Formats: sequence, structure tokens, C-alpha cells
Amino acid sequence: MRTYLDCVPCFLRQALMAARASTDDENIHRQVLNSVIEILPQFSLDIAPPQTSRHIYRKIAQVTGVRDPYHGAKQESNRRALQLYPQLKQIVASAHDPLFAACKLAIAGNAIDLGAQAAYEDVDTIIDKALALPFGVDHYGEFRASLEKTSRLLYLGDNAGEIVFDRVLIEEIRKTRELEVHFVVRGEPIINDVTWEDAEFVGMDKVAEVVSNGSDAPAMVLSECSPEVLELYHSADVIISKGQGNYEVLNEENANIFFFLKIKCDVVARMVGVRVGDAILRGRNVQVQPFA
Amino acid sequence: MRTYLDCVPCFLRQALMAARASTDDENIHRQVLNSVIEILPQFSLDIAPPQTSRHIYRKIAQVTGVRDPYHGAKQESNRRALQLYPQLKQIVASAHDPLFAACKLAIAGNAIDLGAQAAYEDVDTIIDKALALPFGVDHYGEFRASLEKTSRLLYLGDNAGEIVFDRVLIEEIRKTRELEVHFVVRGEPIINDVTWEDAEFVGMDKVAEVVSNGSDAPAMVLSECSPEVLELYHSADVIISKGQGNYEVLNEENANIFFFLKIKCDVVARMVGVRVGDAILRGRNVQVQPFA
Repeated sequence: MRTYLDCVPCFLRQALMAARASTDDENIHRQVLNSVIEILPQFSLDIAPPQTSRHIYRKIAQVTGVRDPYHGAKQESNRRALQLYPQLKQIVASAHDPLFAACKLAIAGNAIDLGAQAAYEDVDTIIDKALALPFGVDHYGEFRASLEKTSRLLYLGDNAGEIVFDRVLIEEIRKTRELEVHFVVRGEPIINDVTWEDAEFVGMDKVAEVVSNGSDAPAMVLSECSPEVLELYHSADVIISKGQGNYEVLNEENANIFFFLKIKCDVVARMVGVRVGDAILRGRNVQVQPFA
Repeated sequence: MRTYLDCVPCFLRQALMAARASTDDENIHRQVLNSVIEILPQFSLDIAPPQTSRHIYRKIAQVTGVRDPYHGAKQESNRRALQLYPQLKQIVASAHDPLFAACKLAIAGNAIDLGAQAAYEDVDTIIDKALALPFGVDHYGEFRASLEKTSRLLYLGDNAGEIVFDRVLIEEIRKTRELEVHFVVRGEPIINDVTWEDAEFVGMDKVAEVVSNGSDAPAMVLSECSPEVLELYHSADVIISKGQGNYEVLNEENANIFFFLKIKCDVVARMVGVRVGDAILRGRNVQVQPFA
């Protein structure tokens, strides 16, 4: 997707949040805002928001001297999500359709995101809500059918904490058939996105081959990815793309992608035709039937 | 109150909204954002947000060539609120405490505000909600007692549409005692704030002496007001201040002010110790009893 002008105030809001996570010094917070303000007019609206926000986060790190302001918050998210792991496994095991339950939980896990507009919900309350509410877009049937023909799955991770929910889904998928799973993490710390450290901490390396995309963008920007990851991307039978950032950069790509995300802002909500907070499981190649 | 850095993204959000109300041309929307971005670093955090936003709205008008982008929306708000007038009068007349009901409605009317974060609620649904919910801060008893000793009331208006609710409150106050009421409007069109035109359209001049404060700020900035209005301000026994903008510039003033407002953003919510959306009737001079 392109960037909308609504994203401009949101970039500033995120910059302030990152500045505050980096230091308590209000003078530095203002320096951060002014530095970001200075570069905002340069950005093209033709690229996706995460392609701009990576430059913004680099600028913030330059000004604050703090390269990974959410490191502590990420560790805490992972730790809390791991505490939930036995409960998540239990929910999936006892569900009428365990794969469906695992999908619902994986999308619920996406509510843990410090970058976007919606408030940081208490991890413990996310599960109940997720299981109770229907999807805003529901291509689960197509996803399930697609998985049955899959021998190579590429899973694009998004946030810390959420990655524990991803592990539960991957474990469930592996029960359905023998297949190769690669789990992609960001190449550098960016907001609360998953890196190698998070994947190792939650044991993702036990259930999937973990690979870094080699980029510091808060999304899977193909032009920034390592050749190894691009090869995996092009040879995968099915791609699971987690989160709004990945959706923003991949929603027009021609690949067998299923987007698993919570909608975090009005712009994307309008684009998808749903509401902020909705859980979405959307297949890129699924033909939407027009109303008769 | 001072300005917080949280206000900076919000200034941009409001600028985009005003740009879109002025023209459909996205190039001009971006020009507006870039022009506002250019002047943002100049502003002091020591002044209240409305003192900055007036400069921002001036800049927007320069770029778009549209001086009163919300004129149509204001007329529509006034028209719809006037349709509700008989119903508002009926609610007040049949209430156990008519003055209390009129206060609740006057604050409910403050939900009609195109400038602030909270979504524009349907006017028709505001009434039911308002009557059902308690105030977040409730100094009604003190307000009622203060009115009983009042012979000069100054009423600081806020938004179009809302002004019909203000008229109902003023009519109710005039029933309780003989008193002089001055209703203050902004000196120039700014966002959806009331001007002479709105006061005349809704018949405010039939129940109060309408005066312009002579300023184009979206709030009662004392240093910008005409000598006539300042004289009224200093000689009033009681001042009713409507809306968050007036609260932001007057909350530290030493006068017998009662603030009637809906809380529109997190910054003010934190400052007041309430939540966004809460209705507040707060006396400036009311001593808050600490918990025992």
C-alpha cells in the first residue's frame, strides 16, 4: 500500500513514544520530534509506511543514542507470553478445530504491538476476547485447504510476545502434515519487532528454521531482504504474514500469502473495509465473491 | 496549561482535517502539512495549545485560501441542534432538578467538536448518553450555590451546535434569578467555534448579551481579548467556561470559573485525573477534599 497523509501525524506520535521509551529527558523528546519533523517532507507517499518509518526510527536512535528502546518491553512481553504458553496449548488441544483455534490465537497475539495506535492491551485479557469474536475477514477455509498442499511454509514474524502465539500455531500446523517451516525475523532491532534474540528466547528454533531478513525495516520490505530470504519467499507454497506492517508492504504482492493481523489504524481499516481492532485472516489470492 | 509534546502530532492531525475540509486536492493537503511542519519547531511549550493552534489555522488558511472551512459543517450543526431544541426544553422541564438536567445537556453539547480527537458523534445520540452517565468531576452543588449569589454571569461559548444547548442552560439559569448574562463568541471564524453568526442563527441574542472577544484563537486567550470582554471577565460573579480549549487557557486563572466540558484527549484526561469522553463540571475555586 501507499502512504496516506494520515500516516504523517502517526509517524510523529510513534517518534514521541520511542523517544520516551529511550529517555526521560523532555528536551531530548523535543529534539527527536524536531529532527523527525525536519525529514518528514522528504518522504514519498508512493512507498509503504514501514519504508518511511525505518528512516524515522534510525533518526530517533541517532538523536537519543539508544538503538533498541523497547528491548526491556520486548523481554517482558516474551516472558509474559511464555507464561501463557501452557494455557494456549490447552485451548488449542481442547478446541473443536485445533488449527482454527491456533489461528485465532496467533492473530490475537498480534494485539501486542507498541508501534500502532490501539492501546497496549493486557496480554492476559487478549485470549478471551480473541476466542469470542469472529474474524472481520475470514479466509480460514482457503487457508486450511492451501496448507494441505504445502510442503514449504514461510512464516513472517512480527512482534515480541506475539511470537509465542506463532510458535503454538506452527506446532499445530506441523501436526497436520510433514512440512518445512522457515520463520523470518527482522535483521535489526526495530520497535518491538522480533529478532533472533526473541526467536531463541521463546524456543522458536525448536519448531522452525529461523532466518533473519537482513533489514531494519519494521516489515518485510522485499527490496531490503537478503537473497536467502528472497529465495525462501519465492519458493514457499504458502506464506503466513503476521501483522499490519507486513500487510502494508505485501498486500499487493503476487504470492500465496495469508495475512494474519489485527487492524491497528483507520487508514488500513478503511482500505480493508473493516474496523480498527478487527482480527483478519485474509488470503491474497482468495477471490472475493461479489454480492449476487 | 502548558503544551505537551503529545499535542504536536495532534496539531498535524487537526491541520490535515482542516485541509481536507477546505479542498479535495491531496497536493494541497500535503502542502498544508509541510507548511505546518515548518512552523511547528518555533512554538513554545510554555503556552497553552490553543495559542499555538491559532497560528496553525492561520497558516492553513494561507495555503488553502479557505478562511472558514467548517462554515457548512457549523451551519449543519446549528440546524440539527435547533431541531432538538423543543426536546431539550422538554427534558429540562420534566426533570427532577431542571438546572442539573440543563447542565448535563450543556456539557453533552460539547461533544460536538470537529477539532479534537474523539469522533464526531451523532447529535441525536448524545442526549441519551449524557443523561445516563455521571460526571467525571461533579461540582454541581458548588455551581448551584454560586449562582444564587450571582448578578453578573459571563458565559464563554465554544462550538456551533453546542450553542443551542448553551441557550437552554442560560434560559434555565434566568428562571432561578434576575441576572445579567453575557455570552462570549470568538472574534473570527476558527475551526467550528461560535461566532456572531452562530449566536444570531440560534437566537442566543434573545437570552443574553452577545459579545465578541475580538480574537481568532480557538479559546478565550485573555491577552488577546478586547478591553470590553476583559472588563466583563473581571467584573463577573460567575464565569461558565465551555469546552476543552477554554479550559486549556483558563484552568490556572484566579477567577470564579466553572468549567463545563467533555474531555477530548489523553493529555487533558491525565491532567484532570479522568478519562477521555468524561463529562466534567469543575469549579476553579472549589476546594477538593483530600481523602481522609
